[in-house]
Amino acid sequence: MEPIFSDRIADVPKSFIREILKVAINKNVISFAGGLPNRDLFPVEDLQKATNNVFELYGSDSLQYSNSEGLLELREYISNWYKSEYEMNINVNNILITNGSQQGLDLIAKTFISEKDDIIIEEPGYLGAIQAFSVFRATFHPVKLNNDGLDINMLDQVIKTADSKIIYCVPNFQNPSGISYSYKKRQEVASKIKGKKIYLVEDNPYGELNYSGRKNVSFKKLVPEQTILLGTFSKTIVPSFRIGWIIAPDEIMERLLVAKQAADLHTNSFTQMIVYQYLINFNIKRHIEKIRDLYGKQLNAMLKNINKYFPDEVEFTKPEGGMFMWITLPEGFSTIKLFELAIKQNVAFVPGYPFYIGRKDTNTLRLNFSCSDEETIEEGIKRLSIAIKEILSNN
Amino acid sequence: MEPIFSDRIADVPKSFIREILKVAINKNVISFAGGLPNRDLFPVEDLQKATNNVFELYGSDSLQYSNSEGLLELREYISNWYKSEYEMNINVNNILITNGSQQGLDLIAKTFISEKDDIIIEEPGYLGAIQAFSVFRATFHPVKLNNDGLDINMLDQVIKTADSKIIYCVPNFQNPSGISYSYKKRQEVASKIKGKKIYLVEDNPYGELNYSGRKNVSFKKLVPEQTILLGTFSKTIVPSFRIGWIIAPDEIMERLLVAKQAADLHTNSFTQMIVYQYLINFNIKRHIEKIRDLYGKQLNAMLKNINKYFPDEVEFTKPEGGMFMWITLPEGFSTIKLFELAIKQNVAFVPGYPFYIGRKDTNTLRLNFSCSDEETIEEGIKRLSIAIKEILSNN
Repeated sequence: MEPIFSDRIADVPKSFIREILKVAINKNVISFAGGLPNRDLFPVEDLQKATNNVFELYGSDSLQYSNSEGLLELREYISNWYKSEYEMNINVNNILITNGSQQGLDLIAKTFISEKDDIIIEEPGYLGAIQAFSVFRATFHPVKLNNDGLDINMLDQVIKTADSKIIYCVPNFQNPSGISYSYKKRQEVASKIKGKKIYLVEDNPYGELNYSGRKNVSFKKLVPEQTILLGTFSKTIVPSFRIGWIIAPDEIMERLLVAKQAADLHTNSFTQMIVYQYLINFNIKRHIEKIRDLYGKQLNAMLKNINKYFPDEVEFTKPEGGMFMWITLPEGFSTIKLFELAIKQNVAFVPGYPFYIGRKDTNTLRLNFSCSDEETIEEGIKRLSIAIKEILSNN
Repeated sequence: MEPIFSDRIADVPKSFIREILKVAINKNVISFAGGLPNRDLFPVEDLQKATNNVFELYGSDSLQYSNSEGLLELREYISNWYKSEYEMNINVNNILITNGSQQGLDLIAKTFISEKDDIIIEEPGYLGAIQAFSVFRATFHPVKLNNDGLDINMLDQVIKTADSKIIYCVPNFQNPSGISYSYKKRQEVASKIKGKKIYLVEDNPYGELNYSGRKNVSFKKLVPEQTILLGTFSKTIVPSFRIGWIIAPDEIMERLLVAKQAADLHTNSFTQMIVYQYLINFNIKRHIEKIRDLYGKQLNAMLKNINKYFPDEVEFTKPEGGMFMWITLPEGFSTIKLFELAIKQNVAFVPGYPFYIGRKDTNTLRLNFSCSDEETIEEGIKRLSIAIKEILSNN
């Protein structure tokens, strides 16, 4: 029987990264290809205690169906966190708990995107967002990402020529580039969209993984009525629980909630309770400090060794947080070819092309620094530098 | 600022049931309106032990990101269950773990439905499915549900006149009607679609809640290549964990997996591990027997008291399993009006209209029997009979 699918799924780029991870699974390979938090930092014991609390305190109430909005206490905690940490006033009713940030993207795409609707994204951009919006057959308008954020002239141009409903961006320690928007750039982007029929989706999974100590201002503060803010516990506490959230203005929240009901009724409420018990009984700030400390050291090791080993013509970003760094070879070089050379040296990374719309190869690549210790990073960068020198000399 | 949404969400019927449940929350009201499993039967202690097993056995591995397909061991268990309980051969690669059955519907809708695509559903039909398919702007073709399943002449007609890609049905102890398809009806439906470009979505959340002992045959056995089978642990073990599954042929599974990745990366893997530990360490069959025993008694109490108290002109289904029963007043009577009279008698139910496409009122209603004990059921049915007699005499 011939398949009779809707066209939408055929349009979704596969997660090439998953394919690459299969290659990188060999024990001898030092992999900078992954995108996972460091499992050594998961607060296993504290989460086990929090889980026991849930059983003792809630019993069978923790096992029953629950509401689509998410656990009220957890949403209150999130609201208070924005208040105390970022001086932001977020009403509990404007917070919806989602199955990780990724589901936030799916619900936003459902709520806003009809076939061929225009959407502005960063280039390079987050692959998960490209996938989520592809399902709803959005027309992507990539805007180049500079070291301080979106290229403002290009953004201006795209806003004028395309009828975009959504700008999707990751202003803090972006995946894949590691860059953060400057305060000035945030203000410029905000003023470009203010009063226009455009919503800015601010995806902020890495915000707390800030190694410089400088706190970045959220678009939710600059253009509150036009900003939809996404957050998650996946990078700070635990990924497998799949707990993220969307913050949106009232009229959007109402529709997101309908979309959430239709998507899966509600997010796992048992693990929402565990996270809440963890938050109120243990020291999340100290835990985040531990992550910052370790990842920050690993980031520094990567920067130091890139400076030491890479040829001068190779460019790289200088992240102040997050989990990723972005490497640019001179124009015309292929990071797919480099990948093959690198694997021979037993080191892996993600070639840049999946982070663009419709490219088959680029001169860019992504490195992850959250999962390798400093020593491994030095060795891996050394190996990668051999592959890079080989490809540069062969041209 | 004027909202700029896609049209899809505006098309989704709200969950009227949620609104009704708010009315029914009053302590004096006996509510047959809910649709929840009975919380007294949740295996709290065993799940707590299973949870401790997960922490001891997997540690931080239980907290990391996981694969989109779902936990391999759990999918193997599900495959073996179909083999041993139903003599069905389901390959592990054809099982995808979803965030409850509801997400299965969302993924199927994504994979098959473009705007205005035709879909055949039961009338009355499951509200969650109507919502999920509405998001993708399907055109619904309701086919009347008789006491033995879909009206075959009407189905024949609709298959001939509409270009439907999907038939959605709940052949076992359907929500809302409680009816099950006869074996003959299953064969007839199967032969109607065989070889045509139609997939049958067999949603089977209540299959294990079988109080007659008779095992129904799955469409997956009758037309395997055209059946997509949905299952869930929500009605047998625990709803809050949101663990369901889709079983689909290879070429569909491939696309469902892309849709799943884009939707939320993967289902909560921590609670998948807990369910697996529960399944291998405790006696799930004995647990299901306990549920069957209790719900079966409550169903009998409801049938007995309806026979005793309701006027003869009121019709009702005679379910052999599940959680729901369906009541039909004589033609022309309104169950919205009846609801108002019933609330005055301190008893609640769900009026039938949300289970139809585009109706504002009907002469039908749904009763739930899983959450009230036998005594409460007698009292509630007595109260409801007073309201029914009142509405019948007033006409």
